[in-house]
Amino acid sequence: MLSHHKEFRIFSLVHTLEVRKLSEKKKKLLVVCSKGTIDNALPPFFLATTAASMNWETHLYFTFWGMDIITKKKSENLKLSPVGNPSLPMPNIIGMLPGMTAMATKMIKSKMKKTNMPSLEEMIKTAKDLGVKFHACTPTMQLTGVTKDDLIPEVDDIIGVATFLELAQDADVTLFI
Amino acid sequence: MLSHHKEFRIFSLVHTLEVRKLSEKKKKLLVVCSKGTIDNALPPFFLATTAASMNWETHLYFTFWGMDIITKKKSENLKLSPVGNPSLPMPNIIGMLPGMTAMATKMIKSKMKKTNMPSLEEMIKTAKDLGVKFHACTPTMQLTGVTKDDLIPEVDDIIGVATFLELAQDADVTLFI
Amino acid sequence: MLSHHKEFRIFSLVHTLEVRKLSEKKKKLLVVCSKGTIDNALPPFFLATTAASMNWETHLYFTFWGMDIITKKKSENLKLSPVGNPSLPMPNIIGMLPGMTAMATKMIKSKMKKTNMPSLEEMIKTAKDLGVKFHACTPTMQLTGVTKDDLIPEVDDIIGVATFLELAQDADVTLFI
Repeated sequence: MLSHHKEFRIFSLVHTLEVRKLSEKKKKLLVVCSKGTIDNALPPFFLATTAASMNWETHLYFTFWGMDIITKKKSENLKLSPVGNPSLPMPNIIGMLPGMTAMATKMIKSKMKKTNMPSLEEMIKTAKDLGVKFHACTPTMQLTGVTKDDLIPEVDDIIGVATFLELAQDADVTLFI
Repeated sequence: MLSHHKEFRIFSLVHTLEVRKLSEKKKKLLVVCSKGTIDNALPPFFLATTAASMNWETHLYFTFWGMDIITKKKSENLKLSPVGNPSLPMPNIIGMLPGMTAMATKMIKSKMKKTNMPSLEEMIKTAKDLGVKFHACTPTMQLTGVTKDDLIPEVDDIIGVATFLELAQDADVTLFI
Repeated sequence: MLSHHKEFRIFSLVHTLEVRKLSEKKKKLLVVCSKGTIDNALPPFFLATTAASMNWETHLYFTFWGMDIITKKKSENLKLSPVGNPSLPMPNIIGMLPGMTAMATKMIKSKMKKTNMPSLEEMIKTAKDLGVKFHACTPTMQLTGVTKDDLIPEVDDIIGVATFLELAQDADVTLFI
């Protein structure tokens, strides 16, 4: 038999333990990579490598144009488009000229190198080493005809939308990029 | 009067019931559709129809260019832009030629058909049948002059940003596409 | 010593108080602003000013092209690209002509004015007045060479990805725009 006070102390203790358990649960990040240009590929990898370093459970889901990032023939040749992006210092009419996509791409890659930023290929390796999970999107593969063999070996699995939603439902942070 | 052990069993039981109740709450998905191109319109509908099939409470919020998806005159004519997207296999200078937007659009629609993927129009109907809620954005309508009569009949309501935030605040997954 | 019923009443009361405390916690919104065009800059500010008015803790994180929004020389000259956006009523070939980016930009600004929508500059001031926090992205600044002095005075701090994730982990709504 317990006194009023003892009971409360037990209640509080159990409650505190429960709360602590909840707050100690590993945080979880899920980033959808839906675009295939360098500027859109970098943020997911900045986020994923940082989150994994902080001991978060980290997932990257590649879909639509984002599949280019994990497709062998395209991964090392992601480009930066000089048109349709007024943030770049060149007018659309010049961005249109043959070779300008290559030049804009070279420019950003050179800036990344100068500032000692790892390349996308290096970030893919680092992310994998840190335990980040790479998921490819089933419907995109059906639509584009890309097969498992076309994907870089870092890809963990190929999952559909239902499995994606299951991954997302208890993520602490989910971003669609 | 209860013994120490009995109390604990009661406590555990109540706690378990609470936790179960929480985990049985219907999951909720909210997708913001902000873009008006086919490739950006498909992911929200893949997500929404799948979530609704899994018995999730599912909401689509159409804003900015995404309003085209639910605007009568535009919904069936969403396009895919061949410029500013280096993931497509044609250089910007060719994407510029008159008719190329139409050709890129035809290409993706044909691929969708070949792979037995439902068209966007069919996905809109399916989503509606599955109980997905369609919300149009008040500020966008004020900005563009689009009225309720211009919208497809599947739209449930026209809501502002405050109502959107109320929808989002307890969603399990919120994505801005 | 407590009776079975008394205990339950105490348990319920404590539980109710805990739940109430949780539900009374201030809601938190975090929006990542990653793009530098007017149409992509408006939604974060619509969301942020509304959330702050509703007494939410509100954060804007500016990264990549979104840094233009808080960069002195660029903030008042954000543009709307007329190419690569089939939602606009002009074909790419015309959007390419010199001066068309300026014209599309003028068009959207004029529409905003006609519908009594505040300009982006006004929304920045309002957001700040309402207590919205402005965060600039360290890696973007390293990549672009933009320094603290280049930023508008409304910026609260310059933070990296780890601090961003700490901000995001307990946000009720996080959107990447």
